[in-house]
Amino acid sequence: MTPDDLKFDAHGLIPAVVQDADTGEVLTLAYMNRESLQLTLGSGETWFWSRSRQALWHKGATSGNVQRVHEIRTDCDGDALLVRVRPAGPACHTGERSCFHRLLDLP
Amino acid sequence: MTPDDLKFDAHGLIPAVVQDADTGEVLTLAYMNRESLQLTLGSGETWFWSRSRQALWHKGATSGNVQRVHEIRTDCDGDALLVRVRPAGPACHTGERSCFHRLLDLP
Repeated sequence: MTPDDLKFDAHGLIPAVVQDADTGEVLTLAYMNRESLQLTLGSGETWFWSRSRQALWHKGATSGNVQRVHEIRTDCDGDALLVRVRPAGPACHTGERSCFHRLLDLP
Repeated sequence: MTPDDLKFDAHGLIPAVVQDADTGEVLTLAYMNRESLQLTLGSGETWFWSRSRQALWHKGATSGNVQRVHEIRTDCDGDALLVRVRPAGPACHTGERSCFHRLLDLP
């Protein structure tokens, strides 16, 4: 499977689940466009497309908490990525290790 | 955090990363609308919105491979879910345990 086989959505984006390759913890859900995927593949560190800022985003560029890519997996449809990484620090800007640190109240 | 705090997109959907609560394996990325989230919360099993079929989808209804919900987490933005489950069988229709069974070729 190569990047050319992937399906990007109407906005040119593909969702990327980012997982700690060692602990299995899911760190964040972010989005890549073709350019950020190429930058990720070329550099070995995660690059995303920030939908709020409408800009390329090198994870950890300011915080130092870069994510080294261990492997990238895709699903049957080729319309989602699982990016397994070794993070240099917390994924969340709040300092939490994972962005998914809030529990939803179950009935 | 309650379901009312979540942000659904322009199509009324929120992406849901489904993870095996015991092994940490990421099983699939699916989408929920408000109704499928309520069905999930009410039944304790995952329900999604199938974008291809434009229909509610009770995971495992035909295959028997239901996913019992252990907990649901959300991120800071409230625009993505992490659904931690105990699956009764493979997540993928191919019989693979995870939908993310294809490796992307790295340069």
